[in-house]
Amino acid sequence: MKKVTAFAPATVANVSCGFDILGFAIDDLGDKVTVELKEQEGLTVKQIEGDGGKLPLEADKNTCTVAIKAMLDALGIQKGIAVSLEKGLPLGSGMGSSAASAAAALVAANELLGKPFEKNDLVPFAMEAERMACGAAHADNVAPSILGGFVLIRGYDPLDVVKLPVPKGLYCTLIHPHLELKTADSRSVLRQQISLKASTVQSGNIAGLIAGLYESDYGLISRSLKDVIAEPSRALLIPGFYELREAVMEVGALGSGISGSGPTIFILAQGKETALKAGHESKKVFEKIGLEVDVYVSEVNDRGSYISDNQ
Amino acid sequence: MKKVTAFAPATVANVSCGFDILGFAIDDLGDKVTVELKEQEGLTVKQIEGDGGKLPLEADKNTCTVAIKAMLDALGIQKGIAVSLEKGLPLGSGMGSSAASAAAALVAANELLGKPFEKNDLVPFAMEAERMACGAAHADNVAPSILGGFVLIRGYDPLDVVKLPVPKGLYCTLIHPHLELKTADSRSVLRQQISLKASTVQSGNIAGLIAGLYESDYGLISRSLKDVIAEPSRALLIPGFYELREAVMEVGALGSGISGSGPTIFILAQGKETALKAGHESKKVFEKIGLEVDVYVSEVNDRGSYISDNQ
Repeated sequence: MKKVTAFAPATVANVSCGFDILGFAIDDLGDKVTVELKEQEGLTVKQIEGDGGKLPLEADKNTCTVAIKAMLDALGIQKGIAVSLEKGLPLGSGMGSSAASAAAALVAANELLGKPFEKNDLVPFAMEAERMACGAAHADNVAPSILGGFVLIRGYDPLDVVKLPVPKGLYCTLIHPHLELKTADSRSVLRQQISLKASTVQSGNIAGLIAGLYESDYGLISRSLKDVIAEPSRALLIPGFYELREAVMEVGALGSGISGSGPTIFILAQGKETALKAGHESKKVFEKIGLEVDVYVSEVNDRGSYISDNQ
Repeated sequence: MKKVTAFAPATVANVSCGFDILGFAIDDLGDKVTVELKEQEGLTVKQIEGDGGKLPLEADKNTCTVAIKAMLDALGIQKGIAVSLEKGLPLGSGMGSSAASAAAALVAANELLGKPFEKNDLVPFAMEAERMACGAAHADNVAPSILGGFVLIRGYDPLDVVKLPVPKGLYCTLIHPHLELKTADSRSVLRQQISLKASTVQSGNIAGLIAGLYESDYGLISRSLKDVIAEPSRALLIPGFYELREAVMEVGALGSGISGSGPTIFILAQGKETALKAGHESKKVFEKIGLEVDVYVSEVNDRGSYISDNQ
């Protein structure tokens, strides 16, 4: 029977001043999902690799199958599809792990079914998987994982997804400290009331960041990469956060922030060399405080999810 | 003696979701300032026309001379300069009246002195005039009045002014109801604490608006032109505000909002015809509630202040 494999990249959401509205995709690092038609109707999870046995095999609890189900529902059809998931992303790290699985599953299943949808149209289906996995149908990981590049979620009512340009040579360094941080804790520390002043500063910075991306103005991007709303509370949950920032700015990074709801930290840099240096310096910071980290360096991915095998 | 005249346009600040950070300039409507060298050192206001006798002639209280003084201080020189101001803008209307006077004075004086500064450099001097006139050195009127087009004030520390592109055919209709509204009142109704949710919505909208300007995406501009922070409080001070919005959206406008701190309302539209229709419909709304209005229709001005006479 026909069999399609798709790859979907890791993503950084809550990009600093783009809290809750902006995400971007990473190269190379991500999840692979293979879908194959099967005789019997219904969705099944055939196997999962690389998750340490932590992810559910039940079709109504797995992000891959929940996403595909939303797609089939929209088409008003039933199909027999078996899903195999190869996790390349650590779970609960703030790198958009659940989103990548859903994105890869959708892109693969869409191909399997003869491309009834454009990539853009897949976003709402992936959001259903996020609703199941995280309790909120947010789009700031799934949209960049599917579409690639920087993606703005202007609003949800109705869903308004805007793909933004990626300046050439923009690199991201991800620092994943081996540290458990529950999304619920990251959520609970957020202040629900903020000052008008802080909101205005945040608006200025997100506006500057968007303009910087369009202009490929690295100076403006750097000056704009400041989050005065979520970061001041959340950074306290991540030891070494501010020491890392100081160290990477010293070697020429554009800025740093919490990826998603952490504990992963993203660093943006112009050029691979600076991104590598930033990774090196970050590792030293965490060594000092006795925390192991994984370091990933990648260009910002403008491609998003893609078919990696089609038999 | 040498004599230079400059024109500076009216401006719309607090552009909807761009509260406190975004402004744009209007064509045709504005102030004219003539500066001439005089033998005796010091700045004087020679005459003011069109203000109904309301503006001060004292050099330390007039925005033209205060702005020029800031420029001379930066150059570390003293000069004898006489200023004549021809007001084309109504005072206290929310169209950047004080800003236009300062902008025209600076552009004229800069020319008179042999252009020691680029236009960009004049913004901080005009901000000093705003500090004197309004109590706050805000830049969201003076920067677009000098530079033209849409101008983002990313931040003030340090001052970060970003000129944005203007989509071809973007028109503005200004509705100036004959209604006194004190800036202090407009300020006092603003809530100083806002919800995280509102702040996030505002961020999404300003990000969408900036992207829309770069993409000349009128749909995105329209969907983004929403202010959930200042407008809900301030609109209550302007009778007919929401009726006007309904009427102009019906004839195809992109959006509407309070210009500056009001009472003027701005409407953005694609093409002159829609802008004229919006003006017509607005007039009808205010006629119903018995308020006279002035209506101005103009393309968004990408030119800013300019020398109109140089002898």
